[in-house]
Amino acid sequence: MHLGRVVGTVVATRKDERLTGCKLMITQPLNIDEKPIGEALITVDTVGAGIGEIVIYTRGAAARHAADKLQSPIDAAIVGIVDNIDVYRDLLEEK
Amino acid sequence: MHLGRVVGTVVATRKDERLTGCKLMITQPLNIDEKPIGEALITVDTVGAGIGEIVIYTRGAAARHAADKLQSPIDAAIVGIVDNIDVYRDLLEEK
Amino acid sequence: MHLGRVVGTVVATRKDERLTGCKLMITQPLNIDEKPIGEALITVDTVGAGIGEIVIYTRGAAARHAADKLQSPIDAAIVGIVDNIDVYRDLLEEK
Amino acid sequence: MHLGRVVGTVVATRKDERLTGCKLMITQPLNIDEKPIGEALITVDTVGAGIGEIVIYTRGAAARHAADKLQSPIDAAIVGIVDNIDVYRDLLEEK
Amino acid sequence: MHLGRVVGTVVATRKDERLTGCKLMITQPLNIDEKPIGEALITVDTVGAGIGEIVIYTRGAAARHAADKLQSPIDAAIVGIVDNIDVYRDLLEEK
Repeated sequence: MHLGRVVGTVVATRKDERLTGCKLMITQPLNIDEKPIGEALITVDTVGAGIGEIVIYTRGAAARHAADKLQSPIDAAIVGIVDNIDVYRDLLEEK
Repeated sequence: MHLGRVVGTVVATRKDERLTGCKLMITQPLNIDEKPIGEALITVDTVGAGIGEIVIYTRGAAARHAADKLQSPIDAAIVGIVDNIDVYRDLLEEK
Repeated sequence: MHLGRVVGTVVATRKDERLTGCKLMITQPLNIDEKPIGEALITVDTVGAGIGEIVIYTRGAAARHAADKLQSPIDAAIVGIVDNIDVYRDLLEEK
Repeated sequence: MHLGRVVGTVVATRKDERLTGCKLMITQPLNIDEKPIGEALITVDTVGAGIGEIVIYTRGAAARHAADKLQSPIDAAIVGIVDNIDVYRDLLEEK
Repeated sequence: MHLGRVVGTVVATRKDERLTGCKLMITQPLNIDEKPIGEALITVDTVGAGIGEIVIYTRGAAARHAADKLQSPIDAAIVGIVDNIDVYRDLLEEK
């Protein structure tokens, strides 16, 4: 899974009917310093995440499991809201 | 899922028969500012998207679900047409 | 799916028996201007593609569906031979 | 599978219930010289890995198999603790 | 599938029991000129590959099929030993 921040929403009236009722949230991937990395993606929220929250998201079939919609076009989903990140920074330094 | 813009079409007469009847659209990935990012890919349209429209596309098995062709070689599909993108830009700034 | 050009072949006598009889073609990914992008990969040909032809290839489980070998180690397959690519180039310019 | 080092943990109280009881470890990918490469990801520990240990992690459905939670949102898991890496460095030089 | 060279081995005593008996080989991806590209990964050998050999490897579920261990954490496997690579280099030049 990956860290991200919910930064927006997407509205699509014409869409696959299995996406109806799904909250489509724009999630910006973050590194472990909570800085943006790479490009935002469209995730389905499964845990009631709000704009600005730091979340855990998952990709691929894991996202369909999260949304309990196995037969759907979902390929990314928010599956947790982060309370705390503990990083042992000395372990990240090249040795 | 990802944002993209439909920028063209591909014609292939000799192809896997399970692609017959599929509209093969060239979709250019976009960032949340609607600027092109990375390389275009070939997607199957499942929602009646037109050239120039901003769409949501999905990849992998999710694309076969979207096309209702689980036993097919499809690995990318357009699953929604974007009406509106709302981004809280202050959340994207490094803190 | 992606655009590519068949640029060679690979011979492997010792291999997974489920690859026996598969034509292993080296496919160079192309952008929509038909220029090489990224690194070539080894694809199984399912449509009779010839050296030099521009093709559509697919990846992952989609490739096993294409080859009708669901229980095989195939993860990339050629699924179409491109006749024509129509790109509306003005749509690719940043706005 | 990939090499990584466990560098931290993530706490998420509100999360997919199928993640309850899973240890969410931050794993930093390493190259074969044990130097950090790319961005850290959130993995589920299935082998009792400790902070600082060099591990093998796997991604996608393989991670759900590792965790014996096939119907879960897990897409990355630690599946081994590395005792030793043997690299024949002369084979890595360009020829 | 991809080209690679077997450049080493990994030993992990504590690991997912479904990896027991699997030879964990470090495989360095190669381009079609047999030069190293990107980072090495840990693959399960299914064809008796030796250190230094140029191989074909596969990723994802395809790797579990190769190893005949569908319910395992394997996500990369060596599936062939390359005898010969034939590349038509003029096809790789930009036109």
